[in-house]
Amino acid sequence: MSEKTINNQLIEKINLLIEEKKVSDLNNIIKTLHNADIAEIIKQINLEKAKYLYKLIKDEKAALVIVELEDNIREQLLSNYSAKEIAVDVIENLESDDAADLISEFSKERKEEVLSHIENIDYANNISDLLSYSEDTAGGLMAKELIKVNENWNTLLCLKEMRKQAESIKKVHTIYVVNDEDQLLGLLSLRKLLLSQNNEPIKNIIKKDIVAVNVFENNEQVASIMRKYDLIVLPVVNDNNELVGRITIDDIMDVVKEEAEKDYQMASGIIEDIEINDNIWTVTKARLPWLLIGMIGGLIGAELIGFFNLKENIELALFIPLIAAMGGNVGVQSAAIVVQGIANNSLKTNNIINRLFKELITGVVNGFICSLLIFIPILLLGYHIKLCIIVSISLLAVIVFAALFGTFIPITLKKYNIDPALATGPFITTINDILGLFIYFLIGKAIF
Amino acid sequence: MSEKTINNQLIEKINLLIEEKKVSDLNNIIKTLHNADIAEIIKQINLEKAKYLYKLIKDEKAALVIVELEDNIREQLLSNYSAKEIAVDVIENLESDDAADLISEFSKERKEEVLSHIENIDYANNISDLLSYSEDTAGGLMAKELIKVNENWNTLLCLKEMRKQAESIKKVHTIYVVNDEDQLLGLLSLRKLLLSQNNEPIKNIIKKDIVAVNVFENNEQVASIMRKYDLIVLPVVNDNNELVGRITIDDIMDVVKEEAEKDYQMASGIIEDIEINDNIWTVTKARLPWLLIGMIGGLIGAELIGFFNLKENIELALFIPLIAAMGGNVGVQSAAIVVQGIANNSLKTNNIINRLFKELITGVVNGFICSLLIFIPILLLGYHIKLCIIVSISLLAVIVFAALFGTFIPITLKKYNIDPALATGPFITTINDILGLFIYFLIGKAIF
Repeated sequence: MSEKTINNQLIEKINLLIEEKKVSDLNNIIKTLHNADIAEIIKQINLEKAKYLYKLIKDEKAALVIVELEDNIREQLLSNYSAKEIAVDVIENLESDDAADLISEFSKERKEEVLSHIENIDYANNISDLLSYSEDTAGGLMAKELIKVNENWNTLLCLKEMRKQAESIKKVHTIYVVNDEDQLLGLLSLRKLLLSQNNEPIKNIIKKDIVAVNVFENNEQVASIMRKYDLIVLPVVNDNNELVGRITIDDIMDVVKEEAEKDYQMASGIIEDIEINDNIWTVTKARLPWLLIGMIGGLIGAELIGFFNLKENIELALFIPLIAAMGGNVGVQSAAIVVQGIANNSLKTNNIINRLFKELITGVVNGFICSLLIFIPILLLGYHIKLCIIVSISLLAVIVFAALFGTFIPITLKKYNIDPALATGPFITTINDILGLFIYFLIGKAIF
Repeated sequence: MSEKTINNQLIEKINLLIEEKKVSDLNNIIKTLHNADIAEIIKQINLEKAKYLYKLIKDEKAALVIVELEDNIREQLLSNYSAKEIAVDVIENLESDDAADLISEFSKERKEEVLSHIENIDYANNISDLLSYSEDTAGGLMAKELIKVNENWNTLLCLKEMRKQAESIKKVHTIYVVNDEDQLLGLLSLRKLLLSQNNEPIKNIIKKDIVAVNVFENNEQVASIMRKYDLIVLPVVNDNNELVGRITIDDIMDVVKEEAEKDYQMASGIIEDIEINDNIWTVTKARLPWLLIGMIGGLIGAELIGFFNLKENIELALFIPLIAAMGGNVGVQSAAIVVQGIANNSLKTNNIINRLFKELITGVVNGFICSLLIFIPILLLGYHIKLCIIVSISLLAVIVFAALFGTFIPITLKKYNIDPALATGPFITTINDILGLFIYFLIGKAIF
């Protein structure tokens, strides 16, 4: 009834039962577990045991467990399956969107072979249709299963037809109303249907003012529409306004999560979506580009220090790490606030001047506090008073400058339709490192 | 029918209409817009105009627009409203969870006053009950409105009772089945109800194997359960397993989003949840702690450089920014991968050794590539060969070390139930800065 926790004890028990090939005990455990929990167990045991366990899962449950797993484990579990087995045992037990996601991972030949083994031709056609849309569009997210009724029916006929349609559909989310051309007109609330007389014409109780998206709409846009209007299901129409599918919010949760993770990865200097279990080469490829930017920054830093010829004022070298770090930190903070503001639509990008002004004030406040806080301890630590003054003034200047820069860059990127999250992470840190050092040496040379 | 975009043109037009007090034109625009869109317009015009516009919105729509707005704007819009107006015009038009959220922002006296003006006693009691739960629990997220049927009824009686309940409930999500003690037994799928005979006993078609959460469950846990089991509505029970409410996924979307944003803010060096429109002092308070850490790191860096007495090997100063930056960058990358792995449950924290070994290899691969890539250009730029060798070897060592450190820290934090996201951002950068410099000077002194 309530959630079952997959603890180490259960995993150990299952490992042992698999080793001893206690099929009926394993079947009893499988029976009591939710698909998502079985998937979690499969992820936590080794591949051979996972294959053994998976073979024990029957029918629909086996299909639903596969959907919960990541691509690479799926592939391995299904590697021994024939195209026919995949079609009959797995695909035919899934909703069309999950089926299309699964099939899309296969090679072109295997894809066609699997599709050819699906017995229900309509269903196979639905999957083929879904496969034709790009993954990051409404078409790539939607499922074909939905209940629709004609505006010209009455509630009695409607219930009768719905019963017919419900036989082939596992979950009924919303009842859509279409005209004779299959164009979306609105929806029929279950509540209205319950409250109406049997012979009430659908036309009278249809809710017309609903939101729909085009099948080619970008998936982040779809997510933002569903969030904005608090929708649980969103109908998808083609260019003729014909109802072609529906998107449920559980699929959108993943889009929202991935979007947020992408920003996080950008801020952390990782260039594309990677998972903790990806192989070393994939991880290296995602990390190296930002490291190269850091290296180029470091090289410019070396040239800069050389240019200012520290031999005469060797003490300036002592605070290079402080100045570089603070410039980078402030820049990332400012950029992150802007990036989130843009993502939440709470920042009006047409109002750059106001934003920069506010950031200027914040920078001056932060800068003054920091430069006061650094002055006392370094004076007490016995550094030369001139150096203390240089460090304090530089810190103030660097913080103000980094705050403005960190605000300006993401707003500008956004203006040219480049992902503003690019501005967080190593990019802004590196530029602010260098500019910070430049300001520091300039002030240092002037005062010394 | 489809989403309306709030563009600058529309905003300007509305601004003008408000100035000219063209009420009927404004009413026509309001009529065609969704609540969420009206809320967006209110956010984008100045307060006086927003108040004027808001007064024009009627009944239920006015209540639904308020729900879409942020706390501070809500407060200002409702500041002139009497407790009775709020109760009758706003609260009574909302679902219990939104009503409780709104009321929770009021002072204790105003809270009680507003509650006393709600005519429907049951509804007022429901809101009071919801107000008793902490914001970050299932009880704080749930709404009281739900449809429930008794296991002893048949489908005919069930439909009749549902009709009665549906009159006072705006959206029907799921039909819950309870026993005579009001304890949750399972749910009745709309599909089953559609497909069954009129006199079928509910007992025969109940779906028993469902997930429910306790009313005191933490909201991040609730979000993870809904995501894991792909749920759109989740029933909430008390310690006696009595059905007390339900949580819909649109409320959970906000939790998921906030959770991801929190990690992002941590990685960017912002200590608590702030919004772009917060005032300067709030923003400063959120940013200063991390800046202090950076300053302490910078101070230690200065002492470290002083300790190694660079006067004899002044060239070492040139690559301080490179080494510090690379240590920081690699550390943040490694930590971010671990933090996301933990958040996604894809990292098994009991397997630290394997994880560290993989990160060691990744670090060595990245380190070798970087140290090769830096060696050639600095040699060509004319730096002393000894310095080139020192920089290359140090870079390799720093990258390997930072990778291990960045992996180890968040796993360790997690082990002691501290938020692992703390390990990203300025914390890890600062420590890796210092340790990187230490390694660099050690190698430098040994070779020079």
